[in-house]
Amino acid sequence: MALSWKHPIKDLLHGGDYNPEQWSPDVWREDIRLMKKARINCVSIGIFSWSHLEPEEGRYDFAWMDELIGLLSSNGIASVLATPSGARPPWLSQRYPEVLRVNDQGIRNLYGQRHNHCLTSPVYREKVAAINRRLAERYGANDSVILWHISNEFSGECHCDLCQSAFRDWLRRRYGTLDALNAAWWTSFWSHRYTDWNQIDAPSSRGDRVHGQNLAWQRFVTDQTVNFFNAEVAALREFDTKTPVTTNFMGAFPGLDYVEFARHLDIVSWDSYPRWHSDPHSDAAIGAETSFTHDLTRCLKRDQPFLLMESTPSQVNWQQVNKLKRPGMHQLSSLQAIAHGSDSVQYFQWRKSRGSCEKFHGAVVDHCGHENTRTFRDVTQLGETLAQLSQLPGSLVPARAAVIYDWNNRWAIDAYYGLRQDKKNYFEEVLQYYRGLWDLSISTDCVDESASLDRYQLVVAPMLYLLKPGMAEKLEAFVQRGGTLITSALTGLVDQDDLVFAGGAPGPLRKLLGLWVEETDALYDHDTVVVRPLKGLPSLQGEFAAREICERVHLETAVPLAVYGSQFYAGEPCLSENRFGQGSAYHVACRVEAKFTHALLRDIAARIGLQSNWSLPLPEGVNVQKRASAQGEFYFAMNFNPREVTLPAPAFPLRDELSGQPVTGPLSLPSYGVTVLRRD
Amino acid sequence: MALSWKHPIKDLLHGGDYNPEQWSPDVWREDIRLMKKARINCVSIGIFSWSHLEPEEGRYDFAWMDELIGLLSSNGIASVLATPSGARPPWLSQRYPEVLRVNDQGIRNLYGQRHNHCLTSPVYREKVAAINRRLAERYGANDSVILWHISNEFSGECHCDLCQSAFRDWLRRRYGTLDALNAAWWTSFWSHRYTDWNQIDAPSSRGDRVHGQNLAWQRFVTDQTVNFFNAEVAALREFDTKTPVTTNFMGAFPGLDYVEFARHLDIVSWDSYPRWHSDPHSDAAIGAETSFTHDLTRCLKRDQPFLLMESTPSQVNWQQVNKLKRPGMHQLSSLQAIAHGSDSVQYFQWRKSRGSCEKFHGAVVDHCGHENTRTFRDVTQLGETLAQLSQLPGSLVPARAAVIYDWNNRWAIDAYYGLRQDKKNYFEEVLQYYRGLWDLSISTDCVDESASLDRYQLVVAPMLYLLKPGMAEKLEAFVQRGGTLITSALTGLVDQDDLVFAGGAPGPLRKLLGLWVEETDALYDHDTVVVRPLKGLPSLQGEFAAREICERVHLETAVPLAVYGSQFYAGEPCLSENRFGQGSAYHVACRVEAKFTHALLRDIAARIGLQSNWSLPLPEGVNVQKRASAQGEFYFAMNFNPREVTLPAPAFPLRDELSGQPVTGPLSLPSYGVTVLRRD
Amino acid sequence: MALSWKHPIKDLLHGGDYNPEQWSPDVWREDIRLMKKARINCVSIGIFSWSHLEPEEGRYDFAWMDELIGLLSSNGIASVLATPSGARPPWLSQRYPEVLRVNDQGIRNLYGQRHNHCLTSPVYREKVAAINRRLAERYGANDSVILWHISNEFSGECHCDLCQSAFRDWLRRRYGTLDALNAAWWTSFWSHRYTDWNQIDAPSSRGDRVHGQNLAWQRFVTDQTVNFFNAEVAALREFDTKTPVTTNFMGAFPGLDYVEFARHLDIVSWDSYPRWHSDPHSDAAIGAETSFTHDLTRCLKRDQPFLLMESTPSQVNWQQVNKLKRPGMHQLSSLQAIAHGSDSVQYFQWRKSRGSCEKFHGAVVDHCGHENTRTFRDVTQLGETLAQLSQLPGSLVPARAAVIYDWNNRWAIDAYYGLRQDKKNYFEEVLQYYRGLWDLSISTDCVDESASLDRYQLVVAPMLYLLKPGMAEKLEAFVQRGGTLITSALTGLVDQDDLVFAGGAPGPLRKLLGLWVEETDALYDHDTVVVRPLKGLPSLQGEFAAREICERVHLETAVPLAVYGSQFYAGEPCLSENRFGQGSAYHVACRVEAKFTHALLRDIAARIGLQSNWSLPLPEGVNVQKRASAQGEFYFAMNFNPREVTLPAPAFPLRDELSGQPVTGPLSLPSYGVTVLRRD
Repeated sequence: MALSWKHPIKDLLHGGDYNPEQWSPDVWREDIRLMKKARINCVSIGIFSWSHLEPEEGRYDFAWMDELIGLLSSNGIASVLATPSGARPPWLSQRYPEVLRVNDQGIRNLYGQRHNHCLTSPVYREKVAAINRRLAERYGANDSVILWHISNEFSGECHCDLCQSAFRDWLRRRYGTLDALNAAWWTSFWSHRYTDWNQIDAPSSRGDRVHGQNLAWQRFVTDQTVNFFNAEVAALREFDTKTPVTTNFMGAFPGLDYVEFARHLDIVSWDSYPRWHSDPHSDAAIGAETSFTHDLTRCLKRDQPFLLMESTPSQVNWQQVNKLKRPGMHQLSSLQAIAHGSDSVQYFQWRKSRGSCEKFHGAVVDHCGHENTRTFRDVTQLGETLAQLSQLPGSLVPARAAVIYDWNNRWAIDAYYGLRQDKKNYFEEVLQYYRGLWDLSISTDCVDESASLDRYQLVVAPMLYLLKPGMAEKLEAFVQRGGTLITSALTGLVDQDDLVFAGGAPGPLRKLLGLWVEETDALYDHDTVVVRPLKGLPSLQGEFAAREICERVHLETAVPLAVYGSQFYAGEPCLSENRFGQGSAYHVACRVEAKFTHALLRDIAARIGLQSNWSLPLPEGVNVQKRASAQGEFYFAMNFNPREVTLPAPAFPLRDELSGQPVTGPLSLPSYGVTVLRRD
Repeated sequence: MALSWKHPIKDLLHGGDYNPEQWSPDVWREDIRLMKKARINCVSIGIFSWSHLEPEEGRYDFAWMDELIGLLSSNGIASVLATPSGARPPWLSQRYPEVLRVNDQGIRNLYGQRHNHCLTSPVYREKVAAINRRLAERYGANDSVILWHISNEFSGECHCDLCQSAFRDWLRRRYGTLDALNAAWWTSFWSHRYTDWNQIDAPSSRGDRVHGQNLAWQRFVTDQTVNFFNAEVAALREFDTKTPVTTNFMGAFPGLDYVEFARHLDIVSWDSYPRWHSDPHSDAAIGAETSFTHDLTRCLKRDQPFLLMESTPSQVNWQQVNKLKRPGMHQLSSLQAIAHGSDSVQYFQWRKSRGSCEKFHGAVVDHCGHENTRTFRDVTQLGETLAQLSQLPGSLVPARAAVIYDWNNRWAIDAYYGLRQDKKNYFEEVLQYYRGLWDLSISTDCVDESASLDRYQLVVAPMLYLLKPGMAEKLEAFVQRGGTLITSALTGLVDQDDLVFAGGAPGPLRKLLGLWVEETDALYDHDTVVVRPLKGLPSLQGEFAAREICERVHLETAVPLAVYGSQFYAGEPCLSENRFGQGSAYHVACRVEAKFTHALLRDIAARIGLQSNWSLPLPEGVNVQKRASAQGEFYFAMNFNPREVTLPAPAFPLRDELSGQPVTGPLSLPSYGVTVLRRD
Repeated sequence: MALSWKHPIKDLLHGGDYNPEQWSPDVWREDIRLMKKARINCVSIGIFSWSHLEPEEGRYDFAWMDELIGLLSSNGIASVLATPSGARPPWLSQRYPEVLRVNDQGIRNLYGQRHNHCLTSPVYREKVAAINRRLAERYGANDSVILWHISNEFSGECHCDLCQSAFRDWLRRRYGTLDALNAAWWTSFWSHRYTDWNQIDAPSSRGDRVHGQNLAWQRFVTDQTVNFFNAEVAALREFDTKTPVTTNFMGAFPGLDYVEFARHLDIVSWDSYPRWHSDPHSDAAIGAETSFTHDLTRCLKRDQPFLLMESTPSQVNWQQVNKLKRPGMHQLSSLQAIAHGSDSVQYFQWRKSRGSCEKFHGAVVDHCGHENTRTFRDVTQLGETLAQLSQLPGSLVPARAAVIYDWNNRWAIDAYYGLRQDKKNYFEEVLQYYRGLWDLSISTDCVDESASLDRYQLVVAPMLYLLKPGMAEKLEAFVQRGGTLITSALTGLVDQDDLVFAGGAPGPLRKLLGLWVEETDALYDHDTVVVRPLKGLPSLQGEFAAREICERVHLETAVPLAVYGSQFYAGEPCLSENRFGQGSAYHVACRVEAKFTHALLRDIAARIGLQSNWSLPLPEGVNVQKRASAQGEFYFAMNFNPREVTLPAPAFPLRDELSGQPVTGPLSLPSYGVTVLRRD
């Protein structure tokens, strides 16, 4: 499903956050000139404008915004209009202190920062709804306002009495009775049996951080944030029912279950800030992680494009080391987003502010104020490229493989005590498996446990510690009908309330994996365990090293493919396959080095005929992604190396989408080079 | 003095914490079957049962516990019954918030965790006494309830107004007048002279942490904890005067003076959780530290056995790395406790919980729920071994050497500012000297300054920074009548109020050590100082390295045995001997590497004829302990190496207590092997 | 301008902090004997005497102090008399809790520590004024009381309501209108536009830390501290108008703008505690840093001597490692202070306390209580040396070079977000350039942006991120008339309100430096950039390494002297010279290794004829300083190496001031040796 705009934009969006309230109208006019030069067709405004739109309670000033939107529109530039709830004016906190968050020590914030409102406060919701209504009334029908940008990077939590009370209401709705809650939270442990809902608080370092309670709180925070978001949207919808809504996500940000949240959005968008060039030798690891996060965001709505809402045109300012993008990287990282299904490249920020916390964050227009900079030229070049890719909007990423990344699972893993307490490494483990597919240039969906698996040949579910109801049955059905499943250590331990399955791991997956786990060894950093493949998988040759976590499993119906070669469990299986119905379930019982998992994925892909986007083998650090629609099939060949590489000639006829030239032999990509190709 | 039980148990106790309130009676019956299989004869119950025993204020439910205790008893299993104060029900905190602790920032806790009650709250004491009375009334006369387990792992402190007030009362009792307190705390410093008792607060990061005040507070915390404990026992004694009481200690836990506390117990018990296998090459360091802690606990009541109240049958869950015990280690570490004088091996926990904070803590029965696990087999094997050692209960450890470890001394050391602020290392220093004796398999008592020294040939008093009144005189008398004393750097600096002795170090030990300390160098990690032995001690050959702390001493009556070989104090003495009466006092003036102190101990042991438990030399990582009673002399030969070792043939006739075979030559011990031998 | 005393002291002062309230009058008499032996002529008293001078509110006791001052005076020892505000009695906090500080979490301190009063509290000011008046009335006319020592080491801040209110008043005075404040703080960012002064709080981790706000708060803290100080002095001046006032500073302590503060003092003094011997090979780095801090303190009043108010005679107790001063170091470090313009060497402390937090801080008289110690002998030797240097008092340090170190600049740098967030390194960068001049033994002033530059040939202004109004013009005028300026990366970014200059860096210095900065690269620790000098500077040969920060600059009128040799900006200039009027402005566009900046300084010094205090070259770790007056020119040759060195024969005739012998050839200095020479 293609995104469609009220404004006559057909191209990919190119633009970014614009803060006109920081500048005089003279500067606005210069900005328009520069935007047109850089092929900007869309800017985001209003994100931090509340103080200027409502300078005192109930007194509104929209004149300047009318002028601005008119100016933009008359120059062919669409607006993404934000609701201003992400940062309130000082007068609001002063008059209504309840809008200020309280931390888990019971200390209320002072006015300051942003993204810091109480999730529950009725007064805050009322004030937000009031200004949202005005905005919708005034601009909802304006065709050049193409998208509502609700608030900004929702995040955080509040422990005030209002939120505690809302949490208790949420618990009542979820569990119905205290008996049910006591059972789910296993409160017989440490004599915690609750006899009154008011005995329950949010998790706190000065109180409890029980597993079930913790998981419930995280879900509540998501639900309360969504509830706040929905209240914002409801106010807009009183006056505007057609402009789509989004809010800008932050990739794998652990604080909110984006899968749950995304159900309430019309369009998914996110802010991407990779640490490019943090490794002096190659950006492949950062490239793969960025690809993963694009795929994760894309799959929040698998059947439509997403938007890259923010990215930096040069450097950021909030990391410990804020390195400049090297030549080529701006084009590469921007087209990488497009390659993974984004229909936009947008920046934070258009013009660098002169003061306050982000004055050194990269911008299209630097403090020098003119266009004679490397960054401005990079942006302009990209703008020209995007304009040439007019066939792309609306095309999708067709993936036959999926990696499961689940927020609830992450929360449960982050909360448990035990094993390698200091190296839970769920994200890293998922990334290691994803990277194996990325190295093979196999298009991959990243979905959570709620997703339908019907479309996949291969599902990789690393460290699937928490199984939601029905998950085991869904995986069984997937394998039964011919799918291939890969699981890894620490799978199938707890249910949706963080209760260990009676009978132990892998819980309800025991039949599907054909094994049970007796005990799990946690190893020191100086410990290694030899992993020795048995015959059968051509790429798995020699010895490999496992670390940190090793399960001791007993195979029931599964057969071993590799065994431990050291420790007291030498000879016991650590990789197994269980044929189940038409498919197979593989279990990797330990944390093993990447070259093992990569080889395993290569062999399995070959076994099941899972297609790469390019003929194998590709040089290291090169990745090819694919988008497709009725307009055609587009291939993005990307080189994350700071040196030239040559790709083998493609197995099917391709043509360079920018130059129109056919690719007739091996394809050369310069340092950080990227090419867009179309299948002939 | 042997421990004796009401229940007809004659064997060593074997059992552990059991939490029946987490499970249904069906599970209880399966547990009984499994306990009998594993030769369990005793379980600890009720520790976290308050919510189930008193589900609402004043309404009690003992029916389930009646059933449980009856079930256990009828199957030959005794009960250790806990008072439930270690974790209160939510309703109690809700109704009486004063029972919640306040931290040193003045912030009161929320309900949660455990071990978190105010030490002073009258309401909490009243509620605890009420349920304790009920328990004693109901179960005190039950023969199968053999021991009261008061609360659980007492620890922590509270800064609420009630505690502040109790602290001031305590100060008034201790010091009598403000003048005395002002003198003891040296309040003329920084103009702190108090003129009203109410001006004094507990030490806090937002107030004062003066040395004398800090020491007083630590003593108060011990006294107030003991006071709470005594109030618990008093309630029991209203109905039950014969069942002995214990509480589970935590080794060298710094928060409470266990020597003081132990005077109020009938039986000493502790929870032992060593970090086995944290060194990939040998467990000798962990083994020696564990031995030290057993000896420290044993000497809280030197003339009777202690109990190992908790240990893990497999792994724990609260360390950063929670490694599985390797094969053999369960038997070894359990018998190590017996070797040092324990009459029990008990576990936390019998059955793994399904939820909450400790769901991944090792247990005899794992989540799988059956007995077909390595851990269950290990426990069963140990149960069988313990049953064979029926001659052991009541036997003692005869030690002629002692190492002094003193809680007050530790508190004073932890509080001072200066020298190697970052490496006070009192515990490590004591352990280094203890290890020297452990390597020689010399039985060693670990006592504090209050202990009588009459029974010893050798007393090692490392870093005896704080000297209590009479300590110098006691050490003088000990050496005078022929004893040998070893002291080390930073000895004899302050009195019982943390005031430096007028005249400087070693204070009242100057005559005994025959020297005075001019100044103390603190060295960076990159600094080393050569230590060069003079002739006289056969094992002290070559050069050694001192680090961190070097005293510059002036010998008066002492003679030098080693000198510094570098720094501006090269040539000055760093090891000296002072003959005093019939004995000698050695002073090691610096922190010197272990091979120096070990060689010194070897030579001194030889000089004074201090007996090892085995003929020398033993392989590294092997330790032999001895218990003796009218039933015989028992030797425990323990191998802490992950490989087989051979001990030289013993110097006296021994017989294997388990097989009954005599030992006729060199003795072979497998990896982590342990043997119990009896002197013929 | 020489310092002059009421008391007939002509010599350099030698003495230190004395705490007679900790000791009995018997000990005072022994102290007098020891002081005379050690050639002490001055002690500081009363610093922590409040509890003894006013044991309860309004009841004063001066009898003991009368006796003490009389005793000192009659033995020829002058007194520096402190006002006691640095540590209040407990009764004062108890009765007036408002005097206790509140932290940024809103939590009020308990009584404790010192230096912890609210900066604003009217009650505290009233109580301090009352006792100050009494002290001035009683001792102001006493000739042996030569100096008022106001409070002690002023530092810290308070967030109570009184201080918040004072801060708002301060803002109102500084900015006049909220519009002006909103503009200066760029509050259009994140919708922070204030509409009421009461909406503004002090910076806090639970509120805002906006750049402009942060800078304003730091200035307020300085102003409020000075205001408190002035209130103290005003009370004294009611009764004593002639005794000078000082307070003891702490070098480059970042919390207070000492340049601003010093305007209110009669005499500048400071407490110096270098980490001697922290490098095992050489103390040159510590020596240079200590020299820098002496010069920084000296230049707070460039035209008169300062006082070294505190230093340790042996070791301190508050560092992580508190190493003893090696032989020679006491003489060397003490004369180093004299060499840089101090007219005193004073200690903390005369006699070690027996209790509380500083009982292990070095003292002239140790716990042993007698004079037979290395430390006492070192102090005595120094006392004899100082007595021989009777020609020195009043002489000044004639410097023709200056390094700029500015507190406002530091605050702005510490507050920004971006680039190398983790390595702002302003102090380190200044020190690197200072060290280059120190290695050349060129006398150097260390001044802030407010200083007149008229007297200098060379001004080095590293990382001059914040330019105060008029600073650019002053630097232009300096170069215009023939001066030489060196700037480095991150210069000229923001104005006095922390707003980035429109047009970007180097802001108003663009014309003077002849370049503009396009973008600034921040590099990881593993990144290095080659720096390749062009021809022209004889000492700059070969390749050098830049790290962390590299500006990409465009030269306009400047010419390149070195270029980058790697990264994508290879070939671009990184060292440039801009001839401007009669002088030159050099810009070093990156953080480059010390050997580069040192060589650059050597070449520039040679170019402009800037004189060293000795003939070149000197051995590494040797530094020569010079003081001059009508009495003559004095040279201090100092060896910071733990080994003997030989200096080349001086270029002009010198005579040893202590022995009277002429220096006729190369000069030998022992390990940590120092010699005072006078130009013949």
